[in-house]
Amino acid sequence: MSRDDERVARVALSLLGEPGDVRLTGLVAELGAVRLRRLLADEGANLELAGEMATRLASVEPELLLERAGRAGIRYVVPGDEEWPDCLADLDRAEPVQRVGGAPLGLWVRGPVRLDRLDRAVAVVGSRNATTYGADVAAEIAASVAHAGRVVVSGAAFGIDVAAHRGALAAGGRTVAVLACGVDRPYPTPHRPLLDHLAAEGAVVSELAPGCAPTRLRFLSRNRVIAALAGGTVVVEAAARSGALNTATWTSRLHRPLLAVPGPVTSVTSQGAHHLVRSGEALLVTSGRDVLEATGVAGDALAEEPRGPQRPRDRLDHRQQRVIEAVPVASPAPVDSIARTAGLGLVEVRAALGALLRMGLVESVPTGWRLAEAARA
Amino acid sequence: MSRDDERVARVALSLLGEPGDVRLTGLVAELGAVRLRRLLADEGANLELAGEMATRLASVEPELLLERAGRAGIRYVVPGDEEWPDCLADLDRAEPVQRVGGAPLGLWVRGPVRLDRLDRAVAVVGSRNATTYGADVAAEIAASVAHAGRVVVSGAAFGIDVAAHRGALAAGGRTVAVLACGVDRPYPTPHRPLLDHLAAEGAVVSELAPGCAPTRLRFLSRNRVIAALAGGTVVVEAAARSGALNTATWTSRLHRPLLAVPGPVTSVTSQGAHHLVRSGEALLVTSGRDVLEATGVAGDALAEEPRGPQRPRDRLDHRQQRVIEAVPVASPAPVDSIARTAGLGLVEVRAALGALLRMGLVESVPTGWRLAEAARA
Repeated sequence: MSRDDERVARVALSLLGEPGDVRLTGLVAELGAVRLRRLLADEGANLELAGEMATRLASVEPELLLERAGRAGIRYVVPGDEEWPDCLADLDRAEPVQRVGGAPLGLWVRGPVRLDRLDRAVAVVGSRNATTYGADVAAEIAASVAHAGRVVVSGAAFGIDVAAHRGALAAGGRTVAVLACGVDRPYPTPHRPLLDHLAAEGAVVSELAPGCAPTRLRFLSRNRVIAALAGGTVVVEAAARSGALNTATWTSRLHRPLLAVPGPVTSVTSQGAHHLVRSGEALLVTSGRDVLEATGVAGDALAEEPRGPQRPRDRLDHRQQRVIEAVPVASPAPVDSIARTAGLGLVEVRAALGALLRMGLVESVPTGWRLAEAARA
Repeated sequence: MSRDDERVARVALSLLGEPGDVRLTGLVAELGAVRLRRLLADEGANLELAGEMATRLASVEPELLLERAGRAGIRYVVPGDEEWPDCLADLDRAEPVQRVGGAPLGLWVRGPVRLDRLDRAVAVVGSRNATTYGADVAAEIAASVAHAGRVVVSGAAFGIDVAAHRGALAAGGRTVAVLACGVDRPYPTPHRPLLDHLAAEGAVVSELAPGCAPTRLRFLSRNRVIAALAGGTVVVEAAARSGALNTATWTSRLHRPLLAVPGPVTSVTSQGAHHLVRSGEALLVTSGRDVLEATGVAGDALAEEPRGPQRPRDRLDHRQQRVIEAVPVASPAPVDSIARTAGLGLVEVRAALGALLRMGLVESVPTGWRLAEAARA
């Protein structure tokens, strides 16, 4: 059995049903593509459930499809090929979502980025109806990911997807679009230049044969491929019931890191992301750095705890600290009152107040001492 | 020993050190206030660490202070009083923060709301430099809490605090301000009308005797009282190093629910809140309903999962669902192609397409069928 037998068998089988149809992916995982194809051809009509597929098998022309695709610069990558990414095998172990599941039989690819070089790629997905806030954050996160040498995976849709692809390209990085139609179809149409650019410098990928049209079901099965090709998924903005939440579900089923970006609670397009965090499914992330940390190998990039700017008070010694904490914010207090509050002697308090005055942290007025503006912040 | 001995002793002791000084609160918790006062008066100068306090004890006049406060409508509530809230006792068991800790020796109160009626009060705290977004969300959450008959606790500061108090008042609810100075002092000065309003209809509370000025240290000890009087704390906006994060720390040490409101990741005033969620210290909340659920008794108010608006597709039967999922989004497909994709017979697919057409979910064009605009959302 040659590599080509395998490839032809997988193309043929992929034409018998919808991508991710668990009946088909399950049979292929169990029997192998070449054997299943032969079974269907020889005695398919007698196999329970498979009758309909067998009938269809007679009319498909996989070799012709492969040849035409090859002429159009489109390759069909299958398990066993050097380019086949191991990460897709996790799909065969993950629980299906509404009878969609299993590893793709193969992936049609247009573009120079190789699927076996997606190590720790990050999927950046979200709402088609993104806000400018969401699009900006998606672009920034994608740029950080790309800048770190990692691939950004998304779906080429309006809104968050396109912002993510463009952010990665702007950072001079690699990015891959996974489509719910053939890789030769510009969908959505206004993204034709983007898709051509990705085909030239990144990759456009699909489970569907060239020429296939997008359907609702195909968006859902496509989402599982996005989740499976990436080492982790960031949901940037997603309203309740957004398709991005389906990608999130797949990410969880694959036990990959699921991340979500918060937004104003007044924004409906952030509801889905907030829900993912509230339910404990997703980790809240606020920057590309957070994303790299959560999706990288340990210690790869440690997210810093946010710190305020250093303040003048940070430089004080222990005694000065104790004195400044005893100085009133508003109405001035005399030195003996401050000494009592601080629990220190008069002499040392006067000395500390002098030092604090020189640092501009306290003010001396006729009725005593109080904090200067700089120390109140 | 009368209630008044206890009260006088606690006033006297409270004047010896800063509120929340663990040396003092620890000794009172261990020895009792009356006994500690007697010890300090009789042989204080010989007690290790307490010498300084004993010296100061001779000069305080607690009876005079209580009498004057009473004339100004200010009461001093101590343990054993019916009004003393049990929830403060948790402070004696919580780990101190930077040598501040322990239950207050007593609380000065101005206003009709009784401290023993704060059951499941909610603290709403945050940045002084709040954005309008933060202030709006604080007011809305406070209004929801107040509307549910629960008390809103905050610190009467600029920004989130004042928005929370006002939100509660606007909803006709009860709200309590805990100050870092005497309850007779209008601090910050522009909030004098608000504080007078709270004194008339809610309560203004402080660990510090009337007349005392606010200091940095007193804001920190005050925060522990806010956290301890409430059944849970919501941090609405807080930059890194915001004082609200100190209230958050106290809430965690008291094992009370800590909640944080997300905001744009581009907003520095949301950094602290995001950090609390990321670190797992706080639960993300997006509405008053979320807050009530997280701080109420189980089943009190169940937060609904966010749901998108009902869509026409939701009403379809199983067969119609299967057909609509096979209809292309963009380029039309003929009925036989749709039947193949759906895995259904031609006759039943035609019937389903007719029904979908009547519902406005698909369009019929010369070259076949495609999804109508309404079904693409």
